[in-house]
Amino acid sequence: MNTLLSRLLKLEADRNNQHCAAAAVDEDGYDLWLRYLPLAQTRLKDVEDCVRAFVFGAENPTLTVARDELERAFFAMLVKCVPVREGGGISDGAVLVGTPDSLPVIADLDLSLPELGKEGYRVRSLIHEGKRVTAIAANTDIGVLYGCFAFLRHIQTGGDPARIDISSAPKVELRLLNHWDNLDGSVERGYAGFSIWDWWTLPDYVNRRYIDYARANASIGINGTVLNNVNAAPEILTEAYLAKAARLADIFRPYGLKVFLSVNFASPSALGETATSDPADPAVQAWWKDKASEVYRWIPDFGGFLVKANSEGQPGPGDYDRSHADGANMLADALAPHGGILIWRAFVYASDAGTDRATEALNEFKPLDGTFRNNVLLQVKNGPIDFQPREPFSPIFGQITKTPLVMEFQITKEYLGQATHLAYLGPVFEEVLKFDTHARGPGSTVSEIVKGKTFPHPVTGIAAVANIGTDRDWTGGTFNQANWYVFGRMAWDPDETAAAIAEDWVKMTFTCEPGFVSTVVEMMMRSPETLVNYMMPFGLHHQVATGHHYGPGPWVSELDRPEWNPTYYNRADKDGIGFNRLADGSNAIAQYSPEVQALFADPHALDERYLLWFHHVSWDFPLSSGKTLWQGLAERYDAGVAETARMIDIWDQQRAHVDGQRFAQIRTFLEIQHREAQWWRDACLAYFSAVAQRPLPEGHKQPAHALAHYREIHHCHAPGNPA
Amino acid sequence: MNTLLSRLLKLEADRNNQHCAAAAVDEDGYDLWLRYLPLAQTRLKDVEDCVRAFVFGAENPTLTVARDELERAFFAMLVKCVPVREGGGISDGAVLVGTPDSLPVIADLDLSLPELGKEGYRVRSLIHEGKRVTAIAANTDIGVLYGCFAFLRHIQTGGDPARIDISSAPKVELRLLNHWDNLDGSVERGYAGFSIWDWWTLPDYVNRRYIDYARANASIGINGTVLNNVNAAPEILTEAYLAKAARLADIFRPYGLKVFLSVNFASPSALGETATSDPADPAVQAWWKDKASEVYRWIPDFGGFLVKANSEGQPGPGDYDRSHADGANMLADALAPHGGILIWRAFVYASDAGTDRATEALNEFKPLDGTFRNNVLLQVKNGPIDFQPREPFSPIFGQITKTPLVMEFQITKEYLGQATHLAYLGPVFEEVLKFDTHARGPGSTVSEIVKGKTFPHPVTGIAAVANIGTDRDWTGGTFNQANWYVFGRMAWDPDETAAAIAEDWVKMTFTCEPGFVSTVVEMMMRSPETLVNYMMPFGLHHQVATGHHYGPGPWVSELDRPEWNPTYYNRADKDGIGFNRLADGSNAIAQYSPEVQALFADPHALDERYLLWFHHVSWDFPLSSGKTLWQGLAERYDAGVAETARMIDIWDQQRAHVDGQRFAQIRTFLEIQHREAQWWRDACLAYFSAVAQRPLPEGHKQPAHALAHYREIHHCHAPGNPA
Repeated sequence: MNTLLSRLLKLEADRNNQHCAAAAVDEDGYDLWLRYLPLAQTRLKDVEDCVRAFVFGAENPTLTVARDELERAFFAMLVKCVPVREGGGISDGAVLVGTPDSLPVIADLDLSLPELGKEGYRVRSLIHEGKRVTAIAANTDIGVLYGCFAFLRHIQTGGDPARIDISSAPKVELRLLNHWDNLDGSVERGYAGFSIWDWWTLPDYVNRRYIDYARANASIGINGTVLNNVNAAPEILTEAYLAKAARLADIFRPYGLKVFLSVNFASPSALGETATSDPADPAVQAWWKDKASEVYRWIPDFGGFLVKANSEGQPGPGDYDRSHADGANMLADALAPHGGILIWRAFVYASDAGTDRATEALNEFKPLDGTFRNNVLLQVKNGPIDFQPREPFSPIFGQITKTPLVMEFQITKEYLGQATHLAYLGPVFEEVLKFDTHARGPGSTVSEIVKGKTFPHPVTGIAAVANIGTDRDWTGGTFNQANWYVFGRMAWDPDETAAAIAEDWVKMTFTCEPGFVSTVVEMMMRSPETLVNYMMPFGLHHQVATGHHYGPGPWVSELDRPEWNPTYYNRADKDGIGFNRLADGSNAIAQYSPEVQALFADPHALDERYLLWFHHVSWDFPLSSGKTLWQGLAERYDAGVAETARMIDIWDQQRAHVDGQRFAQIRTFLEIQHREAQWWRDACLAYFSAVAQRPLPEGHKQPAHALAHYREIHHCHAPGNPA
Repeated sequence: MNTLLSRLLKLEADRNNQHCAAAAVDEDGYDLWLRYLPLAQTRLKDVEDCVRAFVFGAENPTLTVARDELERAFFAMLVKCVPVREGGGISDGAVLVGTPDSLPVIADLDLSLPELGKEGYRVRSLIHEGKRVTAIAANTDIGVLYGCFAFLRHIQTGGDPARIDISSAPKVELRLLNHWDNLDGSVERGYAGFSIWDWWTLPDYVNRRYIDYARANASIGINGTVLNNVNAAPEILTEAYLAKAARLADIFRPYGLKVFLSVNFASPSALGETATSDPADPAVQAWWKDKASEVYRWIPDFGGFLVKANSEGQPGPGDYDRSHADGANMLADALAPHGGILIWRAFVYASDAGTDRATEALNEFKPLDGTFRNNVLLQVKNGPIDFQPREPFSPIFGQITKTPLVMEFQITKEYLGQATHLAYLGPVFEEVLKFDTHARGPGSTVSEIVKGKTFPHPVTGIAAVANIGTDRDWTGGTFNQANWYVFGRMAWDPDETAAAIAEDWVKMTFTCEPGFVSTVVEMMMRSPETLVNYMMPFGLHHQVATGHHYGPGPWVSELDRPEWNPTYYNRADKDGIGFNRLADGSNAIAQYSPEVQALFADPHALDERYLLWFHHVSWDFPLSSGKTLWQGLAERYDAGVAETARMIDIWDQQRAHVDGQRFAQIRTFLEIQHREAQWWRDACLAYFSAVAQRPLPEGHKQPAHALAHYREIHHCHAPGNPA
């Protein structure tokens, strides 16, 4: 049931002066931030005065979904129908929706549309011919749809419709979700159930979820989606699956959402249609050209291919002694005639097991910079390792200058407590985007590079691994919805703040009640640091259990490849701990500009949150606090656990503001997080205490169990880790 | 969104004299048959007069859920709150809910409760002390809950509350769902998404689905559920999973739903806790005794174990040269002290590949009849092969007399078009239950045996493989919900008719509009025969593709075991087709009573729907119609295809009675069914035409493609067939 039902039930109950249990309604989270909560009586009249009629002009699929969204939303918020007029005159309370082409009157208004480009919008309340009207205007239909969602957000977050004047245009061109969804319905690193793509009933059956997925993405400006896992099954390029993908593209098109596909580099030979997949082989080149043409016959506005090659066992041009550029360019040439782009992932490592994994991507791609076709983009994870709760930015940002870079974030919380831990990723994204690479002097932030300002390129992009699944609330927990939301908002404008976006999200997802909003926003903003404290204090990274990455495994050292082992990263022994990435170590620090090197080079001067990322220091290393590292570690772990307990107390005080079902789920998840924070703290301190051959610092409780207990914990069928 | 919302939206729209698109509401099917559609104005007053207050006595968990269900349902149907009183006096319109213990006034009413036993109920409208009251009464709390659902069904299906007088008691004691759900979330033969048991977040998080699942089962009288696949993972008996199962048992308990578990016979050795799983080994016996005690510590009212042993690769006592009785009795002895039962599946075959698979279960178990402990039940599939769209009853019914038999039906449509084909199973269940085995003279129907009348036993049971998954509508299609529903109703009373149950279901699931109800009920009643016509005319069985059993594969002959091959069953060659099960063939017919043998022995006299099940005949065999078998086959296949086209026409005429979302899904599924009926027809006729070396009979269209085309069809990642 949903909030509209709840409001209507209360209306009925009130009419009968009744208040019964049956009128209490829970929310299941399906509506995400598009709940369109009926407005409080105090706001009703102001909004009604400004929204007496919607005026649309020419019809087309995108304007139709815009109209449906406005009708539906205001019916729910006002609990009455707002009439829709096809064109016609100006009147008080008219909401004029369209482009100068679709609704000519738009051209007569003072909206300075040209500067908004092809996706921007202007939503403005103004007096025209003596009437109070609201314009939702843009140069394109999709801009209009984005404007409608901006108008709705303004109302949902308590804005005054009579004072609205919002202009916005995206600062990044490609704003993409990457689904790591497999064709069998499993989702790699998925913690919200299974894949929402029901490949089996496609292309015949259109699940309502496909439409609501497109609505949600359009509401935050996401304009592209890669449907399948980067560990790609060759079958995705067969006719049967292209027909299925084409049906999804048809559904998504009115919402401005383009379909992309991950492809397996060895597809032609894996499908048995060529003898090899060597990019130098003319038959292979011809196969890809034909395949690209076939894809565009199915999906005329197809976005392009995403490729993970020669990484973690995936095939690639290296299998034939060809370079990443040779492979990428072959695919780019096949896509170019159709206007398609080729996104090549920079996530590669262990070409040589001896080198520091953190350095390998740049080592691999630096020599190739400048050799890629101009429709090739390089997709780079935010940090040099792998989506850790905290990483310094990847040195590729700043060092690769001739190839457009697509930022790759991870929304799904593979390393941040998965479904149940509360970790708002806004501050994590923000920390990376605001980092100054100094690549072209001060102000060369990662954000400026992603926006194509520092090194101009014809196309810019930002992507993130989705956390979406079949769970009713889409993301396996209400607070996980905030991470989908903040990614969309930051992809549109990387300079927006995590706090401001969290505030909008909280108001739309729960309530605008000021005390609740400020309390919950603060809890969200603190959440990643809380998690860092109990998982990776002082920059200690990749300390996770094997395979499913669920829970602590700092002792793991027996995996085939050295850089898969937590011990490779913690380097903990009797004398000290941390990964020396200075000149006398792996020298990974040399991949950064001198200004950035200066930030991290001195263990006594750097931001201690990165201490063990760059330095190997003794257990007695003196921290700025005057405490030793060993004392500091124990303090951080304890602080993380204490903060999770505090989150439970904070949440318990919010009961009055949240429906029973969502309140209870969040409460349960916070309890799990607290229990598991304790587990992380106890397991890590037990292990480090053993290798350091020293007891816990004074004043810190012994772990609940002996080290052996934590080493023996195994999990059966952990989610997100398909065989 | 749901029907209540729809009704309230209309109320609002009407108040504003508005009718806008936004007021149109779709249904997603989640509410199943418990939609509690707001009542038409014409019925409102009659119901309100009879339902002015609910009177409850003592509180307990089951009475609490009964009260919540009544409050919630009548709030939705009347769109107003009906007050609840704790005990207190009789008044006009009072609904008295309870047992003589919980609500003493019940004892004063003329309800003859004793004959209703421990699960039955009486719902009666009567005048007491001059007041019109309704009693929802029983000897037990769970009986009261069943009575509440009966009262609600009476209202939902258009009954007059002032005239209600329903007494009902179940005729079968154990009414069980079998979930073939694996611990990794996949569901063997599941076509409605993945498992609804989120093992990972259990026991902490209670998904709302668990509660609604229990509500739905209670509403149709199902009182037990086997949580996991009969191909059982040993891990289900570990502490971690017992804790999860116990949480589910706690949730289900108020709804009268007992938890059972499937166990792997080799669990003790597979879990590394014993050297062997030989039932004669004292250590193994002790392990199971301890394990049973542990299970009952977690779940005090645990139902018992279900075992698939020495069948299709599962371990069993045969691995140690012990009999099924040796294995079953060991487990029964472990459960007995706790009052638990042991259900042993009779689905075994190919102890000797030479014999007819249809005969093997009885051959195996007949000699053991009488040697089982008295808490052992034998679970027998309805037919001798494997859930084919039509099978004669299993000869075990009638031949095994000293051991209580649990009927095993399959609700999930493994062999009946899976999720998308419309096949109402009521007539299939009915055909089997009404079959007269003549085991003790005429009237010894399968139904009488299942009810324990023909051969009395201390306990009776009926089970079915569930079709429930994570799909929003639970069953992967609205009409599949009817099969869950009809199983529950027939398990409660095997003598109810499929048509009467379908009528209740249609009224509750869609609308009571008479024309719609009669049309849709007729379509449902015809549906299995339609499917038989295009899949297995004249009793031609097991003609399915390999593994996923999706689509036709009459040519398949290369599988390891002879009885896995469709050619084993069709025996089609140049001269004829069919499986000779008479004395000069496999003589499977000898397993039936003389009276049943007489029904099937003469190919010229038998019901031709079973012709090729029992007889191998020439292609020119003369049918009762005067046509040859080859002509008859072509006619049946064509008739099946034609009937699927007719279903589309029928459905298109119902648009006005069904919300847009469910109407469209059903329409799409009917199109898929029609396309696939054509596929079955073309593929089978192409193959038989080839082996018979004769063209299609005159007047029948050539298949759309050559045989090779159909043989080459392969499906990637078909659902319900986990690796």
